[in-house]
Amino acid sequence: MNETIEGMLAHRSIRKFTDEPVAMGDLRLAVRAGQAAATSSAVQAYCAIRVTDPSVRREIAELSGPQEKIAACAEFLVICADSRRHRLLCARAGKRYDQRLEAFLVGAIDAALFAQNMVLAFESMGYGTCYIGGIRNDLPRLDKALSLPKGVYPMFGLCVGRPAERPSERPRLPVDAILFEGAYPSDERVLSGADAYDETYRAYLRQRGARPAQVERSWSGAMVAKFEHVSRPGLGAYYAGKGAKLD
Amino acid sequence: MNETIEGMLAHRSIRKFTDEPVAMGDLRLAVRAGQAAATSSAVQAYCAIRVTDPSVRREIAELSGPQEKIAACAEFLVICADSRRHRLLCARAGKRYDQRLEAFLVGAIDAALFAQNMVLAFESMGYGTCYIGGIRNDLPRLDKALSLPKGVYPMFGLCVGRPAERPSERPRLPVDAILFEGAYPSDERVLSGADAYDETYRAYLRQRGARPAQVERSWSGAMVAKFEHVSRPGLGAYYAGKGAKLD
Repeated sequence: MNETIEGMLAHRSIRKFTDEPVAMGDLRLAVRAGQAAATSSAVQAYCAIRVTDPSVRREIAELSGPQEKIAACAEFLVICADSRRHRLLCARAGKRYDQRLEAFLVGAIDAALFAQNMVLAFESMGYGTCYIGGIRNDLPRLDKALSLPKGVYPMFGLCVGRPAERPSERPRLPVDAILFEGAYPSDERVLSGADAYDETYRAYLRQRGARPAQVERSWSGAMVAKFEHVSRPGLGAYYAGKGAKLD
Repeated sequence: MNETIEGMLAHRSIRKFTDEPVAMGDLRLAVRAGQAAATSSAVQAYCAIRVTDPSVRREIAELSGPQEKIAACAEFLVICADSRRHRLLCARAGKRYDQRLEAFLVGAIDAALFAQNMVLAFESMGYGTCYIGGIRNDLPRLDKALSLPKGVYPMFGLCVGRPAERPSERPRLPVDAILFEGAYPSDERVLSGADAYDETYRAYLRQRGARPAQVERSWSGAMVAKFEHVSRPGLGAYYAGKGAKLD
């Protein structure tokens, strides 16, 4: 096994950071590494907003949870799918930017490939990171705080800093529950993969000192609790308001 | 600079492969490395379908372009956002899986983080890869070929194999056209970033022997040509037909 793969397997999301800043050279190198990821037809439909103003950090920390780590980490980035540059180029050429779900999806995927390279680059330099989906709690407020115009779609945040904790590894589904050959498997096989995983996940929860009810419901129970109620129902309307067509 | 970042910066999409197979141990290690990426609330909303049947490969090669490399590469994976396991767990618990755009977006992002780790893992082992957005040309046909049920949303394909070419580096936008501080920049700054990049991109096109008209239009012109016409207009209806709510 090589250094790159070892680094990936050692990944932990970090939620507590020291006060040490992220060197500007390291930040820019991580962005360059992010940009080196594949991008659909070279569109590069993403951007990263670095948030340094402490009061804006505090506001985003609040709207995202609250999540204190957003205010406390050395660097906080907001990663966006970004169609703005393409829209401006079309307008300058006298053409209409005429896109639907495909362009939005490409932006989301491009932004994620970009961010994942950044995360691995940061980790390879000894930093820790944590993706923040919580910014999607209140994107209109985030837009205001960061002056994000039409065509710029915030996807998630990213905390970066030197780790001040060493979390244990959260186990993943077995490889054979994710990698299929030739066809999608039967419902029975999919469920039995989840059942087997629940046992592994219970051991992890116990070791972390989870409450007995949490241990009992395990991963499967947590998924049911999560997915039986609509998450962030305003999201489609919000992105549509920013100019995305989702049909 | 360390090995991990050097690997990222050396990334090239590979479109020509030797006949050498991908070792099964390497494939499974890449999937494990993929799974080690962050996943929103541990949902792990993705899967990979390995396509080995030559006639199915040929069919996907056709519907995606045609793109001969899909038939010719050592391994071809279809990466999906996957809500199927969550739906089955909800149904077994007598609950309704009740999700909208948030869950679909989390699946797309989770799948991309997973895939990007796989790509870097493969590259670190000397393989080359190419993402294939072309499968989105005809997803109903792909569904049939791979028996992909409701709740499984194909996102992109991935070719893997030993490289039989050494493409030159495709330049990216300048770091300062992607990384912003505190707020989104003015339209003028966004456009001037594109103009500066067009010069770099022209040199790249010339060096690759592109036609004079292509060199002239450069990156900006290619973006206008791409975005002035709707791409893959049936995509939203297709995913909705697979059970996704995009509102």
